[in-house]
Amino acid sequence: MKVVVGSPGTWSGLLLRIGQCAFAGASIGVMVSALGFSNYTAFCYLISSMGLQALWSLGLACVDIYALKIKRDLHNPMLISLFFVGDWVTAILSLAAACSSAAVTVLFTRDSDFCRMILQLSCGKFEISIALAFITWLLIAISSLVMFWLLASV
Amino acid sequence: MKVVVGSPGTWSGLLLRIGQCAFAGASIGVMVSALGFSNYTAFCYLISSMGLQALWSLGLACVDIYALKIKRDLHNPMLISLFFVGDWVTAILSLAAACSSAAVTVLFTRDSDFCRMILQLSCGKFEISIALAFITWLLIAISSLVMFWLLASV
Repeated sequence: MKVVVGSPGTWSGLLLRIGQCAFAGASIGVMVSALGFSNYTAFCYLISSMGLQALWSLGLACVDIYALKIKRDLHNPMLISLFFVGDWVTAILSLAAACSSAAVTVLFTRDSDFCRMILQLSCGKFEISIALAFITWLLIAISSLVMFWLLASV
Repeated sequence: MKVVVGSPGTWSGLLLRIGQCAFAGASIGVMVSALGFSNYTAFCYLISSMGLQALWSLGLACVDIYALKIKRDLHNPMLISLFFVGDWVTAILSLAAACSSAAVTVLFTRDSDFCRMILQLSCGKFEISIALAFITWLLIAISSLVMFWLLASV
């Protein structure tokens, strides 16, 4: 099995996982600090999805650290298949959550004047949280493609 | 290069393309027939994205028909790379469009009572159009995975 940048059990793979975890955590933090987010399904879904993403990436970061410490090769088809399924499921959920929240925020800021009319809505924070969610998705998309590449080249 | 179900230039590939084109067209048709859709960015984006998807799938369906007619093998790395990029871009755009529209519809039906209050909004049609867009995404996701598989196994 080839070893490419971002493979599990490598320094680049570990960096990717830490990045995913950090951005997902930051996205949750900013969204939770925004007033009125809990009234909207899309924002609650963003928090759940980013929470799942952060947990998954944290788990895999620990596996990477363990593999780097005891110098164990994680490139066996069974493990890669497991990472592949998890990465793809969380990547699709993250993209769906980011797009859903973005659509609601666009509705609030452009299609209607809710952001100007209802001053309790923290539209700026919604936007920052969504931008962080999109960065998380970008990082998990890279991991997903690496896993698929590894699986296809077995 | 392996030939798998859904490969370009095969009957299964052609069926997938026709399915994508038909569902994308149906999604556009239902959305356009819904009153008040043009006031919302997410619904306009759904129409653009499904339009692009329908055009792309129609083009590839024509290529498939041509290849089946003259019995030409389309499995060369150059063509597969082109199909791969197009499929992935349209798949991501379709998922983003379907999720965005779904989020706005959930906001109208659950988070607020807009659908009951504003009777001009055709919420039922929005839902049907979004369901069709998700089916389109499912079909293009299958094509995308097949292309990636073919490309990775070169």
